[in-house]
Amino acid sequence: MTTTSLRLEHDLLGSLPVPNDAYYGIQTLRALENFQLSGVPLSEYPNFVTALAMVKLASADANHELGCLPSERHTAITKACRQIIQGQHHDQFVVDMIQGGAGTSTNMNANEVIANLGLESMGKEKGEYQFLHPNNDVNMAQSTNDAYPTAIRVGMLLGQNDLLISLERLIQAFADKGDEFSTVLKMGRTQLQDAVPMTLGQEFHAFANNLREDLSLFQKLGSDLFTPVNLGGTAIGTGINADPRYQGIAVERLAAISGHPIQAAADLVEATYDMGSFVLFSGLLKRLMTKLSKTCNDLRLLSSGPRTGINEINLPPRQPGSSIMPGKVNPVIPEAVNQIAFEIIGNDLAVTMAAEAGQLQLNVMEPLIAWKMFDSVRLVCRGMDMLREFCVVGITANEAHCRELMEHSIGLVTALNPYIGYDNSSRIAKQALHTGCGVLELIRAENLLDEEMLADILMPEHMIAPRMVAKKV
Amino acid sequence: MTTTSLRLEHDLLGSLPVPNDAYYGIQTLRALENFQLSGVPLSEYPNFVTALAMVKLASADANHELGCLPSERHTAITKACRQIIQGQHHDQFVVDMIQGGAGTSTNMNANEVIANLGLESMGKEKGEYQFLHPNNDVNMAQSTNDAYPTAIRVGMLLGQNDLLISLERLIQAFADKGDEFSTVLKMGRTQLQDAVPMTLGQEFHAFANNLREDLSLFQKLGSDLFTPVNLGGTAIGTGINADPRYQGIAVERLAAISGHPIQAAADLVEATYDMGSFVLFSGLLKRLMTKLSKTCNDLRLLSSGPRTGINEINLPPRQPGSSIMPGKVNPVIPEAVNQIAFEIIGNDLAVTMAAEAGQLQLNVMEPLIAWKMFDSVRLVCRGMDMLREFCVVGITANEAHCRELMEHSIGLVTALNPYIGYDNSSRIAKQALHTGCGVLELIRAENLLDEEMLADILMPEHMIAPRMVAKKV
Amino acid sequence: MTTTSLRLEHDLLGSLPVPNDAYYGIQTLRALENFQLSGVPLSEYPNFVTALAMVKLASADANHELGCLPSERHTAITKACRQIIQGQHHDQFVVDMIQGGAGTSTNMNANEVIANLGLESMGKEKGEYQFLHPNNDVNMAQSTNDAYPTAIRVGMLLGQNDLLISLERLIQAFADKGDEFSTVLKMGRTQLQDAVPMTLGQEFHAFANNLREDLSLFQKLGSDLFTPVNLGGTAIGTGINADPRYQGIAVERLAAISGHPIQAAADLVEATYDMGSFVLFSGLLKRLMTKLSKTCNDLRLLSSGPRTGINEINLPPRQPGSSIMPGKVNPVIPEAVNQIAFEIIGNDLAVTMAAEAGQLQLNVMEPLIAWKMFDSVRLVCRGMDMLREFCVVGITANEAHCRELMEHSIGLVTALNPYIGYDNSSRIAKQALHTGCGVLELIRAENLLDEEMLADILMPEHMIAPRMVAKKV
Amino acid sequence: MTTTSLRLEHDLLGSLPVPNDAYYGIQTLRALENFQLSGVPLSEYPNFVTALAMVKLASADANHELGCLPSERHTAITKACRQIIQGQHHDQFVVDMIQGGAGTSTNMNANEVIANLGLESMGKEKGEYQFLHPNNDVNMAQSTNDAYPTAIRVGMLLGQNDLLISLERLIQAFADKGDEFSTVLKMGRTQLQDAVPMTLGQEFHAFANNLREDLSLFQKLGSDLFTPVNLGGTAIGTGINADPRYQGIAVERLAAISGHPIQAAADLVEATYDMGSFVLFSGLLKRLMTKLSKTCNDLRLLSSGPRTGINEINLPPRQPGSSIMPGKVNPVIPEAVNQIAFEIIGNDLAVTMAAEAGQLQLNVMEPLIAWKMFDSVRLVCRGMDMLREFCVVGITANEAHCRELMEHSIGLVTALNPYIGYDNSSRIAKQALHTGCGVLELIRAENLLDEEMLADILMPEHMIAPRMVAKKV
Repeated sequence: MTTTSLRLEHDLLGSLPVPNDAYYGIQTLRALENFQLSGVPLSEYPNFVTALAMVKLASADANHELGCLPSERHTAITKACRQIIQGQHHDQFVVDMIQGGAGTSTNMNANEVIANLGLESMGKEKGEYQFLHPNNDVNMAQSTNDAYPTAIRVGMLLGQNDLLISLERLIQAFADKGDEFSTVLKMGRTQLQDAVPMTLGQEFHAFANNLREDLSLFQKLGSDLFTPVNLGGTAIGTGINADPRYQGIAVERLAAISGHPIQAAADLVEATYDMGSFVLFSGLLKRLMTKLSKTCNDLRLLSSGPRTGINEINLPPRQPGSSIMPGKVNPVIPEAVNQIAFEIIGNDLAVTMAAEAGQLQLNVMEPLIAWKMFDSVRLVCRGMDMLREFCVVGITANEAHCRELMEHSIGLVTALNPYIGYDNSSRIAKQALHTGCGVLELIRAENLLDEEMLADILMPEHMIAPRMVAKKV
Repeated sequence: MTTTSLRLEHDLLGSLPVPNDAYYGIQTLRALENFQLSGVPLSEYPNFVTALAMVKLASADANHELGCLPSERHTAITKACRQIIQGQHHDQFVVDMIQGGAGTSTNMNANEVIANLGLESMGKEKGEYQFLHPNNDVNMAQSTNDAYPTAIRVGMLLGQNDLLISLERLIQAFADKGDEFSTVLKMGRTQLQDAVPMTLGQEFHAFANNLREDLSLFQKLGSDLFTPVNLGGTAIGTGINADPRYQGIAVERLAAISGHPIQAAADLVEATYDMGSFVLFSGLLKRLMTKLSKTCNDLRLLSSGPRTGINEINLPPRQPGSSIMPGKVNPVIPEAVNQIAFEIIGNDLAVTMAAEAGQLQLNVMEPLIAWKMFDSVRLVCRGMDMLREFCVVGITANEAHCRELMEHSIGLVTALNPYIGYDNSSRIAKQALHTGCGVLELIRAENLLDEEMLADILMPEHMIAPRMVAKKV
Repeated sequence: MTTTSLRLEHDLLGSLPVPNDAYYGIQTLRALENFQLSGVPLSEYPNFVTALAMVKLASADANHELGCLPSERHTAITKACRQIIQGQHHDQFVVDMIQGGAGTSTNMNANEVIANLGLESMGKEKGEYQFLHPNNDVNMAQSTNDAYPTAIRVGMLLGQNDLLISLERLIQAFADKGDEFSTVLKMGRTQLQDAVPMTLGQEFHAFANNLREDLSLFQKLGSDLFTPVNLGGTAIGTGINADPRYQGIAVERLAAISGHPIQAAADLVEATYDMGSFVLFSGLLKRLMTKLSKTCNDLRLLSSGPRTGINEINLPPRQPGSSIMPGKVNPVIPEAVNQIAFEIIGNDLAVTMAAEAGQLQLNVMEPLIAWKMFDSVRLVCRGMDMLREFCVVGITANEAHCRELMEHSIGLVTALNPYIGYDNSSRIAKQALHTGCGVLELIRAENLLDEEMLADILMPEHMIAPRMVAKKV
Repeated sequence: MTTTSLRLEHDLLGSLPVPNDAYYGIQTLRALENFQLSGVPLSEYPNFVTALAMVKLASADANHELGCLPSERHTAITKACRQIIQGQHHDQFVVDMIQGGAGTSTNMNANEVIANLGLESMGKEKGEYQFLHPNNDVNMAQSTNDAYPTAIRVGMLLGQNDLLISLERLIQAFADKGDEFSTVLKMGRTQLQDAVPMTLGQEFHAFANNLREDLSLFQKLGSDLFTPVNLGGTAIGTGINADPRYQGIAVERLAAISGHPIQAAADLVEATYDMGSFVLFSGLLKRLMTKLSKTCNDLRLLSSGPRTGINEINLPPRQPGSSIMPGKVNPVIPEAVNQIAFEIIGNDLAVTMAAEAGQLQLNVMEPLIAWKMFDSVRLVCRGMDMLREFCVVGITANEAHCRELMEHSIGLVTALNPYIGYDNSSRIAKQALHTGCGVLELIRAENLLDEEMLADILMPEHMIAPRMVAKKV
């Protein structure tokens, strides 16, 4: 390793040497030492880093407009924030996602990086904070307690679109398969026991419709949950030491910069500590994954076999199966989705406990909440994309096998019930079970229904929907 | 014990003697033997029992209108259902809330009780099912798979109002205290450390506003979640063997009977197995209790002491304290609310796992979901009523102590910051910490601010909101 | 309702009329009013009530021996406790399992019932506490903070035996089936895909062995977790105001009375607040149910069908299936076990959160922990008994179908691999998949192995264990 | 980016170009494409990677001894595995921790890296698998289903020591503080209300003793849980196609290589799918963190203030407090521990759900379990080291304030109870509460006890333990 040049920085606790190529400063360094925990740095979540820069920019704009922040400093902060918003220098956001201090370290990491980027653009050296100060200038009129929660919310808003797109595409993929399989007749199963006929198309449309409700919820609630922010509340929501005009301007600027209809929370004292939005949004993700896990369980069941399982559908092979068992193709993609579901449900619990643990005017567990929220959203998106691209679109139906299972099933007798009567049905069912014969076979043998009638009853459109009993009989 | 007279009933598995005073029949008896688990019978949740009767009534109305159910039988079923809806005979709903069979036992308990009540009104003996049959007549055109989930949803709708009322009253109680305490100045705390001043009124209004968001969510989502039902979907949502007109009539009748805007789900195959509404509603209850638990933690902190804690407020004594420690009054009501929160969060997990465990066309874990949902709603209502009535309304403030803590606090220096400058502030803070003196004391000693100015700064309306720096200085 | 005669009782908060036939007194009455929450009274858990009486008796013995409790009072307390230990008067333990006050209400319920029972045996009226006082005499030398946690632990010890017996019997039932099915050849499945042959006996022995590890853990840990008690620690574990000899005598007496090797905890301050034993024991129950849930999922999978599922085994029918689908038999017992598992996992979460929420010298959430622990143990026992009695012992195998699935399976080729070579295996596998033929069929058609050799390879003892390649080939 | 040279590799699904500097091969590449999920590669957990190499080495040794693996290949595999065990090439373990396929991708990542490292040492090119094959040679006699679970268990054993050391050191740190504070008298608190006196030393010793039970559990259970492995069970535990001698040799070698007393599981069919060890170990971690979270809550409470809280202890400052509130020092280290606790509890839930989701002969959710287990252990260790080093060892007591709070407390009257009588106690308590005076003050004023007697009662050794009433009075 080559010798890195160092600069000395100072804070209330003393001095520390900072690597000279680092845009972050001494407080970030302290956080790096204190919190070697998850191993996951802020930079893992670009939306969060971007949102931090947006908050700093909005605040600087407001401070400038109020005459508190000189133009030169404002310009420098603006340039720095813009760079970060464009995706640059994210590697300088190095603090661990798990941290004490209710986000102070994250806030200071942003303040320091922006200050040093700004200093650079002003032609100054890093660390010459007399020209642009992380606290006095970049953090002006803010407290971690309002800037940090606001940035998390903005970051969540920035991620909404990806989530909606991934979800919409997955719904569409299921619906397309629903159309494709609309004429594939099969047996439905309740309690894992043979029930009554349906189409594979109905099954896949149900997968799609199941998720449509969530799409609608995310669209309806998603923004509402995160648009109210506590920026301007300073330390505990009372706005102490802030200019009365500051909040209005800063929030308006933040809305403009982020492109989201951000507004001030109605009760800033409450908004400073409340984590309810995260609990609910996490709950929505949990609900979504609970559904996807159920769907993936179904995909694995329906594709089980090929010989000793249900084998109604084929999932596209994604990797060679077992070295010891040739020809084995495993449902690896749905299996991964199940695991994502368990992870999300675990994350939801961590979020819930963290939310409950808030005390008095602040929730100090917010860094964990931020981590779990950003990670959950990312993982859910990735999981949905994987499921669609590597699995759903390539699913094929074993139509003949589906029909054979259905025709062989005793449950078919339910459909014939209105035509041959309950007594015949029961007798035929019992006989089928004992002899191993098919219900249709027995009906044909007894001439209970002619072929034309049978064909009529077994037409997909007749089997899979309410129907008046045909008058012929 | 006297000898109970018995009647013999029959089903596919054989015969069993049923106590003659029981309105339920053999299938309920089998369930009683099979499922001796939670010890909690259906009758614990009157809304659920009532909803079952409403579904049966709506279905009977539809069947009658379609000409399938003769008038005499329809009249008998109607009378029986009305009695149950009015709260009678709930003790006959004896099946354990935990049960296999996806609710078949619950559905049959309802069918049997209604049949036997109906028989009685027809002047027949219990068990003379040839005149009114639990399956053929009471369950006509239904499957457990559509009647049971529909009843749970209707039952949830019936409980909504209680929940909204309890929540609204609690909000009002907190808000009233917020008004009452609006002039009580105190220190705010972040990370359990002294922060900056606020009023106790702001703190209590935040408790109220915190819950207002939930009230609004329950109002907005509550009905939407449970109004779509799968009644008419029969076994798996395809409506097999049902008259095409049946669903429309039955659902319309159910809306009329229940007084809720119930409608048919858009995709009955999906609606037959989907538990998403319960997951989300349970998540809302979890969120609410997470907030209430935080609030109760705060109440316990703020009332801690009386001598070695914070002691800013007094909770009304509800029971004698320790026998060994005279004079001790404990915050028993908030403590109970905390425990309710943990119970609800545990219930939410059980609901989540049960929802995820659905397979193919049905979720067989629905009985557990029903139990946890009805129990959670009841417990949350009871907890909120207890908290309001036995605690919140009787809270008093130790105003002098609040002010003393504030004036003695070093955090007060933050409010003086804009007037005496950051350097003076820091020096005074350090001095106060070392000497144990109060900040105000030191400022007076140094004559940094005159009394008039100090009084002006320390006025509640100046300390607890954004404010332009007074020009005087 | 007839007029109940009332007696007036007094405490620090005032007076209340108590129904004269009630053995409990005013403090129980206050708790009844305060805590109308779960609806589950103490009396639901006889082991808990019994344990409370044991603690009171042990303490009275110690106080008597130390000369603090006069003989007459000691005799009266002894008689009362003995009655309760024998199962009498449990209906007098009426307080809700969820309660604030860290168990004070439960402790006072016990103190009051014992005092009034004692008064009765002394020929006094209920409420004449001057002759035998709930606090001064029955609660002598105790605090709720040591008596209550001790009683919970003793109650858990009393329940251990039932748990061990239920678990042992279930293991035996699975093992018996393992023996019964030891020659039933079938395909094993991994990732729900056909894998390699095994016996159904191996599968059921695995179910048994899976639980054996838990039996061993319960035997090894069960007692260790609950035998150390904090009796004698009084308010916070320092034993303030207690005679130095008291603890030794009381704990020794408790061991004798309960028949369990109870001893004093090493650090009474720690033992007063620590809930670790409950967290671990709950974790063991969670682990057990996680396994049973997996096993029940397997039972449901293996019995799925009969025609469109796996159908390797039959579960005994326990109740008629669907009214709309004749002949349907559903796996209702394993379904109930799954739900119990989710309930237990939810309970474990509630216990965990309650344990974490302890503060300083006491855990006030202990009443919830007590409820969840007693309920979990009871539910797990009931679930295991139900599973054994109503399901496992009656399971039968569809041996011919098992063998047919295996012989038809392509996975069989893995067993032939060492004999016909990997190239032949792959070719045969591919051919089987395309043509729908069986592997054995194709091998016979190609004369790759003679019948004798095939029979030798396919012998159960050769298929299902490591084996040297036969030299013949 | 410069053009990377590529090599073409093949598998059952086709061919893909692999970067020539990569030691992994085509199957790893497929996994990289399939599973872009958590973003956390195998290499994050060195113990896991090392354990994989140990399993491969043990297996190669056995195969060599049985004459199945030629010496040259054995030597090459041995060299490769040794390098990995020594910590080299871990960056080649690139597969995501979340993956479908029950660990196949992890197993193949190991097989491919070892094969190519081996080829290099044989003087061959990467990818020349005819000389050393990932499947045929490195994976010889193994299935993912036995090699992968075995590696996870071995990896857990490798991490045990770190866990024990971190835990022991933390216990010692608390115990040292317990000794240091053994004479600091203070008030104990129950239900956050003033209770009776104790020493700060007792409080810190309780923190230590609380953890000692967990240390003992980890020592007692830790190894037992993970030493039985299913290596040799091949696909489903039946050991199909394995030499009967293979298992014994391979497991013995693995014990020697790892230095842990590894042995074959008693029932390999059960051991192939059972996740019980992970559920229990995760439960132990959960229990530990539940305790640490409680302890950290206490540390934050005891250090709350400095002026408006309890302020009995000082935590060492680790970073500057609020920019807006000068002089604020926050308990950032315990706050981080709380968050770790929530994360671990969330992980435990994910592990539990994954364990429950196993089906038939395999648990396909094992990759998630592996991730959560390795991550939980690492995070718990890091958290404990942080807590000890950055917080516990630097804690100081505010002895005078502790004593002042105690002397001013009304709870003190409990200690005087046996000397001045219950009536006096109650009167004094009430008077103190009304007047705001101290109990001692009032007693002195009334001359109820002389100074010598008071001093005697208030001696630490007399206040904080059971004591006979002094005879003097």
